[in-house]
Amino acid sequence: MGQYNAPLRDMQFVLHELLNVEAELKAMPAHESLDADTINSIAEEAAKFTQNVTFPLNQSGDEEGCHHDKATGDVKAPKGFKEAYAQYVEAGWPALACDPEFGGQGLPEVVNNVLYEMLNSANQAWTMYPGLTHGAYAALLAHGTPEQKAAYLPKIVSGHWTGTMCLTESHCGTDLGLLRTKAEPNGDGSYALSGQKIFISAGEHDLAENIIHLVLARLPDAPVGTKGISLFIVPKFIPNADGSIGARNGIKCGAIEHKMGIHGNATCVMNLDGATGWLVGEPNKGLNAMFVMMNGARLGVGMQSLGLAEVAYQNSLAYAKDRLQMRSLTGPKAKDKPADPIIVHPDVRRMLLTQKAHVEGARAFAYWSGLMLDKEHNHPDEKVRKDAADLMALLTPIVKGFITEYSYISTTMGMQVYGGHGYIKEWGMEQYVRDARINMIYEGTNGIQALDLLGRKVLSDMGAKLMKFGKLVTELVKAEAGNEAMKEFTGPLAELGTEVQKVTMEIGQKAMKNPDEVGAASVPYLHLVGHFVYAYFWARMAKIALEKQDQGEFYKTKLATARFYFAKLLPETAMNLKQIRAGADTLMALDAANF
Amino acid sequence: MGQYNAPLRDMQFVLHELLNVEAELKAMPAHESLDADTINSIAEEAAKFTQNVTFPLNQSGDEEGCHHDKATGDVKAPKGFKEAYAQYVEAGWPALACDPEFGGQGLPEVVNNVLYEMLNSANQAWTMYPGLTHGAYAALLAHGTPEQKAAYLPKIVSGHWTGTMCLTESHCGTDLGLLRTKAEPNGDGSYALSGQKIFISAGEHDLAENIIHLVLARLPDAPVGTKGISLFIVPKFIPNADGSIGARNGIKCGAIEHKMGIHGNATCVMNLDGATGWLVGEPNKGLNAMFVMMNGARLGVGMQSLGLAEVAYQNSLAYAKDRLQMRSLTGPKAKDKPADPIIVHPDVRRMLLTQKAHVEGARAFAYWSGLMLDKEHNHPDEKVRKDAADLMALLTPIVKGFITEYSYISTTMGMQVYGGHGYIKEWGMEQYVRDARINMIYEGTNGIQALDLLGRKVLSDMGAKLMKFGKLVTELVKAEAGNEAMKEFTGPLAELGTEVQKVTMEIGQKAMKNPDEVGAASVPYLHLVGHFVYAYFWARMAKIALEKQDQGEFYKTKLATARFYFAKLLPETAMNLKQIRAGADTLMALDAANF
Repeated sequence: MGQYNAPLRDMQFVLHELLNVEAELKAMPAHESLDADTINSIAEEAAKFTQNVTFPLNQSGDEEGCHHDKATGDVKAPKGFKEAYAQYVEAGWPALACDPEFGGQGLPEVVNNVLYEMLNSANQAWTMYPGLTHGAYAALLAHGTPEQKAAYLPKIVSGHWTGTMCLTESHCGTDLGLLRTKAEPNGDGSYALSGQKIFISAGEHDLAENIIHLVLARLPDAPVGTKGISLFIVPKFIPNADGSIGARNGIKCGAIEHKMGIHGNATCVMNLDGATGWLVGEPNKGLNAMFVMMNGARLGVGMQSLGLAEVAYQNSLAYAKDRLQMRSLTGPKAKDKPADPIIVHPDVRRMLLTQKAHVEGARAFAYWSGLMLDKEHNHPDEKVRKDAADLMALLTPIVKGFITEYSYISTTMGMQVYGGHGYIKEWGMEQYVRDARINMIYEGTNGIQALDLLGRKVLSDMGAKLMKFGKLVTELVKAEAGNEAMKEFTGPLAELGTEVQKVTMEIGQKAMKNPDEVGAASVPYLHLVGHFVYAYFWARMAKIALEKQDQGEFYKTKLATARFYFAKLLPETAMNLKQIRAGADTLMALDAANF
Repeated sequence: MGQYNAPLRDMQFVLHELLNVEAELKAMPAHESLDADTINSIAEEAAKFTQNVTFPLNQSGDEEGCHHDKATGDVKAPKGFKEAYAQYVEAGWPALACDPEFGGQGLPEVVNNVLYEMLNSANQAWTMYPGLTHGAYAALLAHGTPEQKAAYLPKIVSGHWTGTMCLTESHCGTDLGLLRTKAEPNGDGSYALSGQKIFISAGEHDLAENIIHLVLARLPDAPVGTKGISLFIVPKFIPNADGSIGARNGIKCGAIEHKMGIHGNATCVMNLDGATGWLVGEPNKGLNAMFVMMNGARLGVGMQSLGLAEVAYQNSLAYAKDRLQMRSLTGPKAKDKPADPIIVHPDVRRMLLTQKAHVEGARAFAYWSGLMLDKEHNHPDEKVRKDAADLMALLTPIVKGFITEYSYISTTMGMQVYGGHGYIKEWGMEQYVRDARINMIYEGTNGIQALDLLGRKVLSDMGAKLMKFGKLVTELVKAEAGNEAMKEFTGPLAELGTEVQKVTMEIGQKAMKNPDEVGAASVPYLHLVGHFVYAYFWARMAKIALEKQDQGEFYKTKLATARFYFAKLLPETAMNLKQIRAGADTLMALDAANF
């Protein structure tokens, strides 16, 4: 069944040496009393929980899957999931990053990311039950009435109730403007919702006392398209005035999907048959409220893929050290053994280092993003808040679209290191590939992320947000201008920055004549900017490693991994640039009938 | 469950317009009477069989999997597999490309490839039962005694008996020198074999009367390593002198593996407990005989991936034309509908065209490879035979390593076109991804293919075989030198040829100082040369399409696809070249303990 050991040392490196979180958080009143030791203790406890409680359920959950009772609509999660969730609630984990006003511990997002990396490494399918709850929490916190908050948030924060996002219908996923679920006023302030939602992760299960669905639907006479969508809160059981569980509501699971992976999470068809719901936020403004959930969910998907890539790397590394096969091309290394461990072979190292460089690049970027969210929400300086918000608007599609794409490649490589054994379920590697595959699809496919990045985040403000990130890069390059040892990193980084700027302008100009140029460039553009972001973080990590390389192998390894990234992975940008510059013509030349 | 329609028009284009097979085959006495109409009729019959008989069993076979009886060791394939195989045998398909001396139809390999593309599109797991038999056939034909051939080949050719290759043991896959299975002489010319083999595809099943295992084992006092391996024929039932089925032999299935995909094929642990076997070929020369099987198997794996990429493309194309979601960036296209079909979106087209260009490039290359095999085996001119043999030695790792790598990417893209529906089993797309994944691993991982290409096929003869392929390219470029319309293809092709030659020499020089440079360069080198091969075939296809573009949309589409390939896929070589030139240093810098 493989192994998982939380990479605490590397997490600490990112938190304390790269991001200096204690000092950064101290600047925010909400987090001013949090110190590094506390953060490290939380991480250690999270490591114990994930290693001992949820990781042992990962493979068994995949094999068993979820169980749906057609008669009642009830769903049972795999054996052990419910008990693990009870432990999770008991320990207070759901409340970690929630508002103290509703029982939360008020810890920063960056610490929550550390927890979620581990949860996802240990068991993505299980983690989706509490994970999706956070979206419902955020939407209610931002848009709920005081009464709604009082009625729902304490139970959600404690984890006794979980939440879902009910958006997709069978004929519309990306294009929510087409949705048909209806909400009719009941006359008492509530609404009767009818329709069918599909692909509802954790839509029904036996882990929590109640499930709070946030449902997109149309009011009578709502405008067509996205401007006629409203958000409703539809609890599985309608809470009584005293907070206890009341009547069963008319929202039931009609079926669960059979999927490629994440078998342990119930992906539900949810039928609403006059279900009672209450409006959240303003009528017809549901999409705004939904985006609060969606942005959080997109960052969460990036964390899922970071977690999977980490655990896949750990296992393939262990296998590569253990498996004896062939001799090194430069002569036997393990002379006392019948063959050398396969980690001696350059191409096995290429696969391991690709995983390692992507995992550690993703971790640096994802934790930094958590810190940006904290600044956006909690920093006293308005300009800092604005800059952080702009950076997160720009980079959310990269967290989602780039981390998931390369983590999929990473888990696939981890499996390849195992040779034939990688294809056998028993070894556990193929599950990581199957689980990682969904992350490229849900919460907006990676193609949608790329359009969001290039169309909405870059071109729509003439590159202003992109320039804010570019400024961080320029500052680093300038600061290190006199540092000869850093040239191997800052040189290519600065060059890439120039190319990104140039090619962005080229696309902008072409797009004015032909909007299809945006769609044509979008995915290679996301990969290009993704590498720009990783190259920035790898340069920053290299700087620390260069300074501390006499303090131990950890820093030498970090430096070697940075060099590998620049030598072997960054060259993908040469391809991206050519693909972008090739434009839309060859894509649009054919009539659909002639494909 | 999706659809499969054999792409007969495109197959005919490759066979008759690109490769001119009728004329080429007429130059070989064995095939001089074969005409284009006969080939087309065979293809049409194969289309009916695969569409109507094996394709409908693909998804059900995946869901059901195989059944192993622990008490008897018997294995049952999924429902319908046995009956489909009986139809296949009844129709004479197993004999298609076999030697008429043993009941074969003596048709060329290139025609067999057409059959196998369809079989694999329809059902890879099912196809592996007859597919692996071909390896046993080829090994016995090349190395069997006249008595062995008489006893086994007619039944194998007719398909009444199937065959396997028993190579791998739990501690050795790539490194067969480590294998432990023993063969002790019985004193009557036979041997008693004992040991355990794993990952034996189609190792045990209920489709055929008998299963003929070709088993690698060690004779007593055999030299250590690969020089002490012999090949044995070990039938499941020992044939009587009259050809009827005799006693059950001591080779039994101990377990079947639970795998990521190809669930319909039984992957067996085979226990040999004093099983009776007979030596094939000379003692201790088993690896030579095995390579006859292995080369055939590697080409066969390329055909598996071609088949999967084709069917995945067909389905994602149908979905992209049907699924309505969002409006085109250039304004509504299907004004009468609530949204446009997603094929209007440039990025969906990017995914479709990537699949299309890879499938059609692979088909041209794979069918051409079949024709090369025919020339190698049957051409009257010794120089033609030698050139064909050299080209196939060079290009076999590219058929295996490049087609499988990019077909996996293609099937993954096909799944992505479906959005969330691609992840659901019911739609059938995720099975193609799971099935395609094994092709990058078995019959020598793609990393091993890359080492074989660069180390054994290119550097060991100082690039002589590579120059034979380079000559084909140069001839094309020269022939089209005056053709202005072809410049957009021949220009980049010639440039790439120069770069391939240059970088090959650079690697050769570095490798003299450090053999690890070969392993470090190998995988990006395989991708580089793979693109060189595809670019050659796309240029040839473009030439025909340019000449005939007034004769219908088929040729315009071919031309547009060629342009897409050169604009959007060939740029990967810019990355490959940088990765190769970055050398081994960053791969080898770390001690294994510091990863």
